[in-house]
Amino acid sequence: MTTTNLTNKQIILKSHPIGWVTPDNFALIETDVPELSPNEVLIRHQWLSLDPYMRGRISQAKSYAQGVNVGERMVGATVGTVIQSTSSKFKVGDVVTSATGWQLFGIAKDSQVMKITNDKVSPTAYLGILGMPGITAWTGLMNICEPKSGEIVVVDAASGAVGSVVGQLAKSVGARVVGIAGGANKCSYVVNELGFDACVDHQSPNFVTDLDQALPDGIDCLFENVGGEIFERLLTKMNVFSRVALCGMVSEFNRDPHAYRTLRSILVNRIKLQGFIVSDKLETWPDIREKLTNLVLAGKLKFRESIAEGLEQAPQAFVGMLKGENFGKQLVRIAP
Amino acid sequence: MTTTNLTNKQIILKSHPIGWVTPDNFALIETDVPELSPNEVLIRHQWLSLDPYMRGRISQAKSYAQGVNVGERMVGATVGTVIQSTSSKFKVGDVVTSATGWQLFGIAKDSQVMKITNDKVSPTAYLGILGMPGITAWTGLMNICEPKSGEIVVVDAASGAVGSVVGQLAKSVGARVVGIAGGANKCSYVVNELGFDACVDHQSPNFVTDLDQALPDGIDCLFENVGGEIFERLLTKMNVFSRVALCGMVSEFNRDPHAYRTLRSILVNRIKLQGFIVSDKLETWPDIREKLTNLVLAGKLKFRESIAEGLEQAPQAFVGMLKGENFGKQLVRIAP
Repeated sequence: MTTTNLTNKQIILKSHPIGWVTPDNFALIETDVPELSPNEVLIRHQWLSLDPYMRGRISQAKSYAQGVNVGERMVGATVGTVIQSTSSKFKVGDVVTSATGWQLFGIAKDSQVMKITNDKVSPTAYLGILGMPGITAWTGLMNICEPKSGEIVVVDAASGAVGSVVGQLAKSVGARVVGIAGGANKCSYVVNELGFDACVDHQSPNFVTDLDQALPDGIDCLFENVGGEIFERLLTKMNVFSRVALCGMVSEFNRDPHAYRTLRSILVNRIKLQGFIVSDKLETWPDIREKLTNLVLAGKLKFRESIAEGLEQAPQAFVGMLKGENFGKQLVRIAP
Repeated sequence: MTTTNLTNKQIILKSHPIGWVTPDNFALIETDVPELSPNEVLIRHQWLSLDPYMRGRISQAKSYAQGVNVGERMVGATVGTVIQSTSSKFKVGDVVTSATGWQLFGIAKDSQVMKITNDKVSPTAYLGILGMPGITAWTGLMNICEPKSGEIVVVDAASGAVGSVVGQLAKSVGARVVGIAGGANKCSYVVNELGFDACVDHQSPNFVTDLDQALPDGIDCLFENVGGEIFERLLTKMNVFSRVALCGMVSEFNRDPHAYRTLRSILVNRIKLQGFIVSDKLETWPDIREKLTNLVLAGKLKFRESIAEGLEQAPQAFVGMLKGENFGKQLVRIAP
């Protein structure tokens, strides 16, 4: 294989994590950038998206997608600029988003690349509110939970890339929205900036009583990102004919699986509990993205980003995100 | 209130069970039979239905329906003959089914009574395959699981009033059906008499390996009647995009709630898990009953009954049913 004269940097998986992920699970390597095959583009990355699903990819447990093996490059969505193209669909200078992973330069088939033409929204939005996280929020809330005006919607990881969109979308259909987030700052943000009706801080020693007070009339729709003790408790608060969109169980990765003692609520309350993965229905993405774009442009959906500087910082930023240390959509700035 | 010259016998709840139900939780009392108000019928019971849902009604835990308090008559469906009527809709001699409970004579509003006019099927079928159990089987299987030809359907309590219908209906749509039942006799029955493809005996010491062998290609549709360890294990065998109709968790009544460690499968496999109660959609019953009747008359749905003799035997028969000692739909013959 012939190569360009560019030198790439990549972050690969050095070892599968046991329990919590640490930066030591990753390694930075240098590689050549190969010449393009036909119908490909070479992208200089500007932004890398860090997302909770990546925890599943580096686990050795069975998950819903092909895992990353030791020695392989970390997967992830990016935004960047085309610097070479053998595709008639893209030209040098195009700003694009694709799934080219944790590296400085990425090569992708043109069928796997989307051009960003909207100049009224930051390109980073295509990694967050207009990308996989925003479309995840829409899919789980609107297609599984289907909240009606006046219903009570609860979302945990409420200030995150998905949760923040869930809550704002639920408000837009007239629901009462209660967030769950870690820390007073995040709770203040979702109530005062995003317009949630209430937020319960799961780090508070009064979490259980605070939750009771915030939910005197139970839950009609739960958008579940976290799993574990909080999910177990929330199940007991579900109303008759309520719905749970099970989007993530990120708390389950770092220990033995949680033992849920509250499943009888599913029967007694005739709950519909549905797991979903947004990439199962790629054909729905363009339509959902258009709806989200319109809401963003109308000022009805706000978003916040947490930015790490430089590819080298990606592992530490990823570890922090899994611990909830980020505040808003976690990005890595790969190049200015 | 004036009374007839008939003496009634009733079984009332004497105490809420703690753990397993015992016959001591019930008492037999004698009462007068009152005169009818307008638009009522007096029914001499011939058959009483015993069903697992009754366990929920006598629990002090929150459930999906009004519970039976200590001192109150036990609830239950019956078949009997009208012996007095103040309703223009029913005349003496009509054979009817209603929900008049554990007693010799029942009085019901005419709106709560259904006349049995089909003389090609035993009237007891209206307490089983053409009654609540059969309609429960149809609702969970056809409306929640929606099995397709070639899919793999699993049902536990497979030889029971609900499970036996689930399996036969699933066969009628071309599914592969694996039952789970307690004991070799019940397993032999569901395979050899009802046409299930396989059955796993949960009383066998080899249950876990037997289950693995019976399900090499996982489960597409689970009709769950029991809950507990078996349900926990079955969750790990669910295929991508599989469905669980959660009909009962009768194993949960007699101990602390089971702790389920396998919920991550719901996310990874994008499972839809839905609790349901057949009485939520009474408007669907006539249509479903007609479909079941046609299948019974066509010889495509078989059923088996387990009969206890006399009202006095109802408590013991109920206790036995909860322990799986019955074999087929549990009935009590109240009168010849």
